[in-house]
Amino acid sequence: MPVTNRRDQERNAVSHKAIGRLCVYRRSLRKLQAMGKPFVYSHELATEASVSPAQVRRDLMGIGYSGSPNRGYDTSELLRSIAMLLDSPEGEGVALVGVGNLGRAIIAYMARQRPHLFVAAAFDSDPEKIGRVIHGCRTLAVEEMPRAVREHDLHVGIVAVPSAAAQDAADRLVAAGIRGLLNFAPVPLRLPESIYVEEIDLTVSLEKAAYFARRSQGAGLT
Amino acid sequence: MPVTNRRDQERNAVSHKAIGRLCVYRRSLRKLQAMGKPFVYSHELATEASVSPAQVRRDLMGIGYSGSPNRGYDTSELLRSIAMLLDSPEGEGVALVGVGNLGRAIIAYMARQRPHLFVAAAFDSDPEKIGRVIHGCRTLAVEEMPRAVREHDLHVGIVAVPSAAAQDAADRLVAAGIRGLLNFAPVPLRLPESIYVEEIDLTVSLEKAAYFARRSQGAGLT
Repeated sequence: MPVTNRRDQERNAVSHKAIGRLCVYRRSLRKLQAMGKPFVYSHELATEASVSPAQVRRDLMGIGYSGSPNRGYDTSELLRSIAMLLDSPEGEGVALVGVGNLGRAIIAYMARQRPHLFVAAAFDSDPEKIGRVIHGCRTLAVEEMPRAVREHDLHVGIVAVPSAAAQDAADRLVAAGIRGLLNFAPVPLRLPESIYVEEIDLTVSLEKAAYFARRSQGAGLT
Repeated sequence: MPVTNRRDQERNAVSHKAIGRLCVYRRSLRKLQAMGKPFVYSHELATEASVSPAQVRRDLMGIGYSGSPNRGYDTSELLRSIAMLLDSPEGEGVALVGVGNLGRAIIAYMARQRPHLFVAAAFDSDPEKIGRVIHGCRTLAVEEMPRAVREHDLHVGIVAVPSAAAQDAADRLVAAGIRGLLNFAPVPLRLPESIYVEEIDLTVSLEKAAYFARRSQGAGLT
């Protein structure tokens, strides 16, 4: 049924993009909440997400939320609505591979963040690191991954190993039952189509900051 | 001159977005090059950047590059054209504040990457860390920042400190002459409009991966 398949793919693509935008709106909403702003207009969320205000209103109507034209959306209520769609109500454990500097930084970062996402199991292939406890999370041998992922009922994994070890780490996570991955290694991963991969590329962000810093520097001289 | 100002702002906004897309195309091109693919079509770059193939062609024409309709763009040539626009020819030194796990991971990551971006100076407020050398980069006291930034002619900074110290780190970098920032702390920074800030938010990426992992898990059960 090629037609049905293509339609499914298109529907999924739209949904993927809308979810991505909702995640970005949420980041802006958290910042506004931290700054003590109780209401927000669609055009404010639109600017940070690089979309049109109409797109923001469509996305939020899509999750059953509409603001008042005069004072905008209620920041806290909107955050709750997005959380109801995006978050698992009972919190979400994550499997992390690679307990080097980056892996330890991620465990510490998540320990400081909201409790609905947390590193439930960390793995390393270095015998020296196995058994170490970081922010309450014990490092296990990669061989223990299938059992630990099943026992903790984990669906999300983080690849925080060097590039050369990234494909092996990802293969092990997927074999253990992980369906979504966050990849910090700057190499392409070959994985089944059904696995969702989100890539964090420091180089891209840094190159962008460097470009605008240089341009702004030049502008300052004229 | 309000009209001129608004026009300038609009032109800058367009340029910002185009630069952001070129950075994303470059990430895709590097992956394709690593996989040994000599040519690439606009629709392939479009998919990864979540834009239309027409947008890709417009952006690449904007930097003076056009592909052959039959075999697409030459991956290596296109990478060189983008580098000529985005990169400083003599390489770009970066100032990093916060030599904890995250800071050390970033220094190690950049030491392994292409040489046109590198950490030229690292700073910490912890006396125990000052003087330590990480991948050839010596950790300095934050008080030495103005001198070091001037001496190394740095324009880009990385904030890799905990949230509570992020605003102070950013203020010090800007006072020392930094014009573009990469912020890893999940807090909003209050900085002059002229400073470009790129935020890395692990929570957003992880929440997205968790959502799709759960959805894919559910789909597997039906």
